Amino acid sequence: MKKAVFYHAGCPVCVSAESDIVNIIDRTKFDLEVVHLGEHRELISMAEAAGIRSVPALLLDDNVLHINFGASIDDVKNS
Amino acid sequence: MKKAVFYHAGCPVCVSAESDIVNIIDRTKFDLEVVHLGEHRELISMAEAAGIRSVPALLLDDNVLHINFGASIDDVKNS
Repeated sequence: MKKAVFYHAGCPVCVSAESDIVNIIDRTKFDLEVVHLGEHRELISMAEAAGIRSVPALLLDDNVLHINFGASIDDVKNS
Repeated sequence: MKKAVFYHAGCPVCVSAESDIVNIIDRTKFDLEVVHLGEHRELISMAEAAGIRSVPALLLDDNVLHINFGASIDDVKNS
Protein backbone atom coordinates (compact mmCIF):
# COMPACT_ATOMS: atom_id res chain seq x y z
CA MET A 1 0.00 0.00 0.00
CA LYS A 2 1.42 3.34 -1.03
CA LYS A 3 0.69 6.50 0.85
CA ALA A 4 -0.83 9.62 -0.66
CA VAL A 5 -1.33 12.80 1.34
CA PHE A 6 -3.78 15.45 0.24
CA TYR A 7 -2.87 18.84 1.71
CA HIS A 8 -5.43 21.60 1.82
CA ALA A 9 -6.34 24.71 3.76
CA GLY A 10 -10.12 24.55 3.73
CA CYS A 11 -10.55 26.95 0.80
CA PRO A 12 -13.32 26.34 -1.77
CA VAL A 13 -10.80 25.27 -4.44
CA CYS A 14 -9.36 22.81 -1.89
CA VAL A 15 -12.74 21.33 -1.00
CA SER A 16 -13.66 20.83 -4.64
CA ALA A 17 -10.32 19.18 -5.44
CA GLU A 18 -10.50 16.99 -2.33
CA SER A 19 -13.88 15.67 -3.42
CA ASP A 20 -12.44 14.78 -6.84
CA ILE A 21 -9.29 13.17 -5.46
CA VAL A 22 -11.23 11.12 -2.91
CA ASN A 23 -13.41 9.98 -5.80
CA ILE A 24 -10.73 9.06 -8.34
CA ILE A 25 -7.95 7.57 -6.25
CA ASP A 26 -7.56 3.81 -6.28
CA ARG A 27 -7.96 2.81 -2.63
CA THR A 28 -6.71 -0.70 -3.31
CA LYS A 29 -3.29 0.80 -4.06
CA PHE A 30 -3.21 4.01 -2.04
CA ASP A 31 -3.81 4.86 1.57
CA LEU A 32 -5.09 8.45 1.39
CA GLU A 33 -4.47 10.82 4.25
CA VAL A 34 -6.07 14.29 4.24
CA VAL A 35 -4.26 17.09 6.08
CA HIS A 36 -5.79 20.51 6.76
CA LEU A 37 -2.72 22.73 7.12
CA GLY A 38 -4.75 25.55 8.63
CA GLU A 39 -5.75 23.27 11.50
CA HIS A 40 -2.39 21.49 11.71
CA ARG A 41 0.04 24.33 11.35
CA GLU A 42 2.79 22.20 12.89
CA LEU A 43 2.81 20.21 9.64
CA ILE A 44 3.37 23.20 7.33
CA SER A 45 7.17 23.02 7.41
CA MET A 46 7.09 19.27 6.76
CA ALA A 47 4.76 19.80 3.80
CA GLU A 48 7.01 22.54 2.48
CA ALA A 49 10.08 20.31 2.81
CA ALA A 50 8.22 17.63 0.83
CA GLY A 51 7.80 20.11 -2.02
CA ILE A 52 4.32 21.50 -1.38
CA ARG A 53 4.28 25.03 -2.81
CA SER A 54 0.54 25.64 -2.88
CA VAL A 55 -2.69 24.00 -1.79
CA PRO A 56 -4.55 21.94 -2.70
CA ALA A 57 -1.80 19.42 -3.49
CA LEU A 58 -1.41 15.68 -3.51
CA LEU A 59 1.88 14.29 -2.23
CA LEU A 60 2.82 10.93 -3.69
CA ASP A 61 5.90 8.83 -3.02
CA ASP A 62 8.20 10.76 -5.28
CA ASN A 63 6.22 13.63 -6.70
CA VAL A 64 3.83 16.42 -5.81
CA LEU A 65 0.73 17.16 -7.86
CA HIS A 66 -0.29 20.76 -7.32
CA ILE A 67 -3.96 20.75 -8.25
CA ASN A 68 -5.60 23.97 -9.41
CA PHE A 69 -4.66 26.81 -7.08
CA GLY A 70 -6.22 27.72 -3.79
CA ALA A 71 -3.44 29.42 -1.88
CA SER A 72 0.34 29.53 -1.80
CA ILE A 73 2.06 27.83 1.12
CA ASP A 74 3.26 31.30 2.18
CA ASP A 75 -0.34 32.48 2.38
CA VAL A 76 -1.17 29.48 4.55
CA LYS A 77 1.83 30.25 6.80
CA ASN A 78 0.78 33.86 7.19
CA SER A 79 -2.93 33.24 7.65
CA MET B 1 -18.16 3.78 -15.68
CA LYS B 2 -17.27 7.45 -15.59
CA LYS B 3 -15.00 9.03 -18.12
CA ALA B 4 -11.84 10.94 -17.28
CA VAL B 5 -9.74 12.63 -19.95
CA PHE B 6 -6.11 13.53 -19.33
CA TYR B 7 -5.02 16.35 -21.65
CA HIS B 8 -1.34 16.97 -22.23
CA ALA B 9 1.05 18.36 -24.78
CA GLY B 10 4.02 16.04 -24.40
CA CYS B 11 6.00 18.38 -22.14
CA PRO B 12 8.09 16.93 -19.28
CA VAL B 13 5.63 18.22 -16.64
CA CYS B 14 2.83 16.52 -18.61
CA VAL B 15 4.65 13.19 -18.86
CA SER B 16 5.39 13.16 -15.14
CA ALA B 17 1.79 14.01 -14.24
CA GLU B 18 0.42 11.45 -16.68
CA SER B 19 2.47 8.75 -15.04
CA ASP B 20 1.06 9.71 -11.64
CA ILE B 21 -2.54 9.95 -12.83
CA VAL B 22 -2.36 6.61 -14.64
CA ASN B 23 -1.02 5.17 -11.40
CA ILE B 24 -3.53 6.61 -8.93
CA ILE B 25 -6.81 6.56 -10.82
CA ASP B 26 -9.33 3.89 -9.90
CA ARG B 27 -9.87 2.00 -13.14
CA THR B 28 -12.85 0.16 -11.72
CA LYS B 29 -14.69 3.50 -11.66
CA PHE B 30 -13.06 5.55 -14.40
CA ASP B 31 -12.35 4.97 -18.03
CA LEU B 32 -9.21 7.06 -18.63
CA GLU B 33 -8.57 8.57 -22.03
CA VAL B 34 -5.27 10.33 -22.73
CA VAL B 35 -5.25 13.10 -25.34
CA HIS B 36 -2.07 14.71 -26.71
CA LEU B 37 -3.30 18.13 -27.84
CA GLY B 38 -0.12 18.76 -29.81
CA GLU B 39 -0.88 15.72 -31.95
CA HIS B 40 -4.64 16.25 -31.99
CA ARG B 41 -4.94 19.96 -32.55
CA GLU B 42 -8.51 19.52 -33.74
CA LEU B 43 -9.43 18.77 -30.10
CA ILE B 44 -7.97 21.98 -28.64
CA SER B 45 -11.15 24.03 -28.99
CA MET B 46 -13.23 21.24 -27.44
CA ALA B 47 -10.80 21.02 -24.51
CA GLU B 48 -10.92 24.77 -24.08
CA ALA B 49 -14.72 24.74 -24.10
CA ALA B 50 -14.63 22.07 -21.39
CA GLY B 51 -12.61 24.42 -19.19
CA ILE B 52 -9.03 23.33 -19.88
CA ARG B 53 -6.85 26.39 -19.35
CA SER B 54 -3.44 24.71 -19.15
CA VAL B 55 -1.88 21.30 -19.55
CA PRO B 56 -1.52 18.83 -18.00
CA ALA B 57 -5.12 18.66 -16.85
CA LEU B 58 -7.61 15.99 -15.95
CA LEU B 59 -11.19 16.52 -17.12
CA LEU B 60 -13.78 14.81 -14.96
CA ASP B 61 -17.56 14.81 -15.34
CA ASP B 62 -18.11 18.21 -13.85
CA ASN B 63 -14.73 19.61 -12.98
CA VAL B 64 -11.25 20.17 -14.33
CA LEU B 65 -8.15 19.44 -12.28
CA HIS B 66 -5.27 21.52 -13.59
CA ILE B 67 -2.23 19.61 -12.41
CA ASN B 68 1.07 21.43 -11.94
CA PHE B 69 1.78 23.62 -14.95
CA GLY B 70 3.31 22.61 -18.23
CA ALA B 71 1.90 25.09 -20.71
CA SER B 72 -1.11 27.34 -21.12
CA ILE B 73 -3.71 26.32 -23.67
CA ASP B 74 -2.73 29.45 -25.63
CA ASP B 75 0.85 28.22 -25.81
CA VAL B 76 -0.42 24.89 -27.12
CA LYS B 77 -2.56 26.67 -29.72
CA ASN B 78 0.37 28.77 -30.90
CA SER B 79 2.99 26.03 -30.90
